[in-house]
Amino acid sequence: MSEQKLEIVKTEDKKPKPETDQIPFGKTFTDHMFVMDYETDSGWYNPRIVPYEPLTLDPAAMIFHYGQTVFEGLKAYRAEDDRILLFRPSQNLQRLNRSSERLSIPPIDEERVMYYLTQLISLEQDWVPSTQGTALYIRPFIIATETNLAVAPSHSYKFMIILSPVGPYFSGGLKPVKINVEDQFTRAVKGGTGTAKTAGNYSSGYQAQAKANKEGHADVLWLDGVEKRYIEEVGSMNIFFKINGEVVTPELNGSILNGITRMSIIELLKKWGIPVSERKISIAELYQVYEEGGLEEAFGTGTAAVISPVGELNWLGHQMVVNNHEIGELSQKLYDTITGIQTGKVEDRHEWTVEVQ
Amino acid sequence: MSEQKLEIVKTEDKKPKPETDQIPFGKTFTDHMFVMDYETDSGWYNPRIVPYEPLTLDPAAMIFHYGQTVFEGLKAYRAEDDRILLFRPSQNLQRLNRSSERLSIPPIDEERVMYYLTQLISLEQDWVPSTQGTALYIRPFIIATETNLAVAPSHSYKFMIILSPVGPYFSGGLKPVKINVEDQFTRAVKGGTGTAKTAGNYSSGYQAQAKANKEGHADVLWLDGVEKRYIEEVGSMNIFFKINGEVVTPELNGSILNGITRMSIIELLKKWGIPVSERKISIAELYQVYEEGGLEEAFGTGTAAVISPVGELNWLGHQMVVNNHEIGELSQKLYDTITGIQTGKVEDRHEWTVEVQ
Repeated sequence: MSEQKLEIVKTEDKKPKPETDQIPFGKTFTDHMFVMDYETDSGWYNPRIVPYEPLTLDPAAMIFHYGQTVFEGLKAYRAEDDRILLFRPSQNLQRLNRSSERLSIPPIDEERVMYYLTQLISLEQDWVPSTQGTALYIRPFIIATETNLAVAPSHSYKFMIILSPVGPYFSGGLKPVKINVEDQFTRAVKGGTGTAKTAGNYSSGYQAQAKANKEGHADVLWLDGVEKRYIEEVGSMNIFFKINGEVVTPELNGSILNGITRMSIIELLKKWGIPVSERKISIAELYQVYEEGGLEEAFGTGTAAVISPVGELNWLGHQMVVNNHEIGELSQKLYDTITGIQTGKVEDRHEWTVEVQ
Repeated sequence: MSEQKLEIVKTEDKKPKPETDQIPFGKTFTDHMFVMDYETDSGWYNPRIVPYEPLTLDPAAMIFHYGQTVFEGLKAYRAEDDRILLFRPSQNLQRLNRSSERLSIPPIDEERVMYYLTQLISLEQDWVPSTQGTALYIRPFIIATETNLAVAPSHSYKFMIILSPVGPYFSGGLKPVKINVEDQFTRAVKGGTGTAKTAGNYSSGYQAQAKANKEGHADVLWLDGVEKRYIEEVGSMNIFFKINGEVVTPELNGSILNGITRMSIIELLKKWGIPVSERKISIAELYQVYEEGGLEEAFGTGTAAVISPVGELNWLGHQMVVNNHEIGELSQKLYDTITGIQTGKVEDRHEWTVEVQ
């Protein structure tokens, strides 16, 4: 990437900021966005912060036809002392490059993009809300822009960062949800794109999600695509179980996402001396543990919710009620610790947070 | 779909038409395109033919983030008597709706869209080239357009048809190609999106394609995602083998595409009295057949190439040379028959072609 100066064009027409404790996720965007272009001959070029505005693309742009795209999701939090904090942002940029590799998209320079990202957030700092549970959601993404219907990697791309203030994921505290164990549809399989944050992994789950919702479940628990035996993810989150005092989460097997909240939880548990293992766990094993009374807690983890407690799992008519539909002690402690670190209320001993100047 | 009148806005600035025997696939587009919108409350509305122009979409439009999109590919051919023929277009629209169902996209009215499609091609008829092997490629597609980062089906969509004159797929006749049997990456698995023509299925193959190209192979033969044993597809085509006088192609197993050329070939072979079976076939079985001298022909099938003969397969260092790198007799006959029907040179006894008035 050539070392180009960041161009900044400020808007003259600032939008009103919403009441952030009420706005729905992902529908409101800030005044500016970051954009950078790529051509095979020149690499990434023309990094710029410009007023938020529509994209203009040829109908034959590759993004509309062959799905060559990757994205990330992270948040900026406002601490009580008004500092603006990011949570492990370099992990997101590393993962973006790993996703890009899988999709044959050229890598970005992580250090330069971190600079652009913090410049953008600095400019938009008034958009970072302060109510508890709110944050400024950050969506970096790359799309293939070449005008060409050939099935082949694009020669041109756009990298963008857009920002959206978001309210609390759960209004009224953490509420354990009902989950359906999906036995028909498959999210991902080894050798596929399951470990990448790429568009096609998400819409492919809508049918299973609709089926779950119809049956009164909030989300789907995915099993592996080969044997339909081993637990993979819940919705678009990683999943953890507390079983007889030990915390278990599916190992990174080539088809599940390497979640940054997942990674942070494992590190915290190790520090706290709580046994944690990343391993294969089958739904049959989980059910047996449940029948024997050993399933103590279950929760999904991800950037959006941080911790999403599971109150009930349904597997082919077998019902597993977890902790009497109440949030578990460890789930709550992990939630409080991570959100505390994110918002500066809990001391950050891991150097996970990065302050935006 | 409400029965709305097709609006036609003609361009005042027609483009020059290219020399069609030389243009590359999918880079040149005609003067007009078809567009229709969808909102949950109103269904599909405002069908219109307008000058070909860029799309303007919010950076948070769902298509850029979660891959909710489907497409089709078919061709209009110019017969020697100047009639313009489509090949089984209703099959494409049926498949589009099946793909849409998998991606939670609302269906289109196939009959109305067939009307819009033929009106568009009629208006653009001067763009249908006449040189042998050329055609006007037709790309219908649907994209999710709602401005929303929530992981859920869009409430708004755009259906579009764009047209691109294309030269012969193979210049200089049918040339058998070398294929690498992919043992690491996976295209699709049962319960996934492999049977749908959706964007994510295509870019997910680029890494395997690049690996194959690097080793001197033109394309990839995909094995099943569960056992890595059974043959699925070649590149983005279906695959056929002639084994000891019988034609074998992988059965529709929930992860391969239901190709229209594939379907037509099976129907032709049955009519000709040539044994044909749709069944599981493992790469190990194919190799054994090859060793015993029974692998007579191999070819990929699809709209773009119709027939793409395979001259050599490489499977973990095992090399299978098919028919001495020459096109097989049956492959050639199928190619001649189908392209003959498509261009009106061979009598269409199946009512496969539809004339555009």
